Amino acid sequence: MTLISLSRRLRRTPFSEGVEAAGVKAYTVYNHMLLPTVFRSVQEDYRHLKEKVQLWDVAVERQVELRGPDAGRLMQMLTPRDLRGMLPGQCFYVPIVDETGGMLNDPVAVKLAEDRWWISIADSDLLFWVKGIAYGYRLDVLVEEPDVSPLAVQGPHAEDVVAAVFGDRVRDVRFFRFGVFDFQGRDMVVARSGYSKQGGFEIYLEGADMGMDLWNALMEAGRQWDIHAGCPNLIERIEGGLLSYGNDMDRRNTPHECGLGRFCNTQTAIGCVGRDALLRVAVEGPVQQVRAIEIHGDVPPCDRIWPLMDGEMQVGRVTSAAWSPDFECGVAIGMVRMTHWNSGTDLDVMTPDGPRAVSVHETFWI
Amino acid sequence: MTLISLSRRLRRTPFSEGVEAAGVKAYTVYNHMLLPTVFRSVQEDYRHLKEKVQLWDVAVERQVELRGPDAGRLMQMLTPRDLRGMLPGQCFYVPIVDETGGMLNDPVAVKLAEDRWWISIADSDLLFWVKGIAYGYRLDVLVEEPDVSPLAVQGPHAEDVVAAVFGDRVRDVRFFRFGVFDFQGRDMVVARSGYSKQGGFEIYLEGADMGMDLWNALMEAGRQWDIHAGCPNLIERIEGGLLSYGNDMDRRNTPHECGLGRFCNTQTAIGCVGRDALLRVAVEGPVQQVRAIEIHGDVPPCDRIWPLMDGEMQVGRVTSAAWSPDFECGVAIGMVRMTHWNSGTDLDVMTPDGPRAVSVHETFWI
Repeated sequence: MTLISLSRRLRRTPFSEGVEAAGVKAYTVYNHMLLPTVFRSVQEDYRHLKEKVQLWDVAVERQVELRGPDAGRLMQMLTPRDLRGMLPGQCFYVPIVDETGGMLNDPVAVKLAEDRWWISIADSDLLFWVKGIAYGYRLDVLVEEPDVSPLAVQGPHAEDVVAAVFGDRVRDVRFFRFGVFDFQGRDMVVARSGYSKQGGFEIYLEGADMGMDLWNALMEAGRQWDIHAGCPNLIERIEGGLLSYGNDMDRRNTPHECGLGRFCNTQTAIGCVGRDALLRVAVEGPVQQVRAIEIHGDVPPCDRIWPLMDGEMQVGRVTSAAWSPDFECGVAIGMVRMTHWNSGTDLDVMTPDGPRAVSVHETFWI
Repeated sequence: MTLISLSRRLRRTPFSEGVEAAGVKAYTVYNHMLLPTVFRSVQEDYRHLKEKVQLWDVAVERQVELRGPDAGRLMQMLTPRDLRGMLPGQCFYVPIVDETGGMLNDPVAVKLAEDRWWISIADSDLLFWVKGIAYGYRLDVLVEEPDVSPLAVQGPHAEDVVAAVFGDRVRDVRFFRFGVFDFQGRDMVVARSGYSKQGGFEIYLEGADMGMDLWNALMEAGRQWDIHAGCPNLIERIEGGLLSYGNDMDRRNTPHECGLGRFCNTQTAIGCVGRDALLRVAVEGPVQQVRAIEIHGDVPPCDRIWPLMDGEMQVGRVTSAAWSPDFECGVAIGMVRMTHWNSGTDLDVMTPDGPRAVSVHETFWI
């Protein structure tokens, strides 16, 4: 139990006042910004998320905005996912890779218009890569971090809460689509998306000045559904197989290793950085891949890589783990070598508290 | 007093075991890695740093390694500081700017050889920018984060401690120079540098496996000088005017605003990114600049921008602040507009606990 030292460098968000008033107990740091991790307890937050509705300060999902005639060309350079069929109003989950095919981020691309995109990023300074590429290729595009801060409403009653504030038309927004809705005279992008499997919306607040107005309006509207402040929940995201950049993958991994091959169209994504490096792995497949791992026994906090062993031989690793009350087992995300990735394979994971028996689970717990 | 949630994404360092054993009380996150901020108390740590000697886990100073025929060309592209006279064995503090002249990082460049450099970075993913530029310009250079983790020895007895482990030859290493020294059969770069004004060394550990051996050897050797685990100290660094990227400056600031004009040779740094943007400010000077700010009265924790006011008009901001036991006043780092930056100017700073009278101080407290 160690404290976090606050400083301006760990940026507050437009919703920090609301988060504090709701009694946040712990933070992590994500994109140089404070991300709440616990309100009541991880277990209580988990139960409430699955049964009710929560308001999440996910302003840490910073945006990289691309604007100008070359915005579309640049966006396609950044990802092996073929974006030709993407329309304004759509959101695409896009692996972003370097010239070796290594993952730099796994954001959601939001196509606002043919010449204007937001990239809603995971925890790395993707802005620096995008600016470097745009500069090196002398592209005619502005690349900036705009004053945009997502606020998520997640859980079974999310649609009711968001409709109460933005009107029933939000109910027509389909998964990974967005609409533009008015809030107190300001247009806001509202997408059906979010970092949980419980359903919900992300509201892209433009203009930090309105942060607490939006927070309070949603809290007020959600009272009848027992809304609480919440945050991405460790247990729920592992059950759902939601990967976390920096935890479950990093620059050393290809999208294919991360199980993101279905988001790669390496043959047709002409001009994308890393295409040469990924073409072979796209055909032959990776030699290690993300797998759901069931842990038999108690689960200590996972704050480092846990080796996965077959006897004396390391065959993979676990990078996220928690005890699941609903499935009554330890749930984990691991990267396992091909020789040992078949479901049902029994292995040991080496935690700092000693080894635990595990098995490769066929699917995540959804 | 909020906790930090640990996860693999907030990377441990090769020295984390030592830090934990020494009773670390709080962390910040820096380059996606844990940086200790308090051991006994900020005040006790401050006193001990100034009088004795401390061992600092500054593995968060990650390296960006440039290797290959174009390494030197790329390094000069990154900074407006003229590097032509720099020799292997030297360390240069180098502002790094984007095409608009905005600060991306303020690292120390370590020239290992004509074709091999380390950039010892502050808190931003500079690797992404450097890789983007290298890729866009098709430079013949490898850009990577190597397995290198700096460990600092700082304080009046630092030289004695480092000499006890690496031999008396380290005493000949001059400020911002380095030598290569043996530790248990492995070569290590040892530089006279560090993020304090108390003097000392930074040892660039190559190979995380030896982290605790090095930590323990220095702890053991330092016992006679009352060595303690420590960390960059908020009070001491403000007194000394050591800027912190993300706190006291960011992408919106030019080096000239940060008082780093003396590290810019914009006319002669041919080929550097941002040269066009900086040429004018290099001649005319900036309209706002970093200043030492003395606070009259108590100093609450500074975790956000505090506006600096002349009556109703905002004329700057404070971004780091602490109470100084030695100078018996509040010490702070601010950015002040030209109209109000003369020393002795009286202003008010708006803290969350209410306004405080301040004045622009002629120099930092060194």
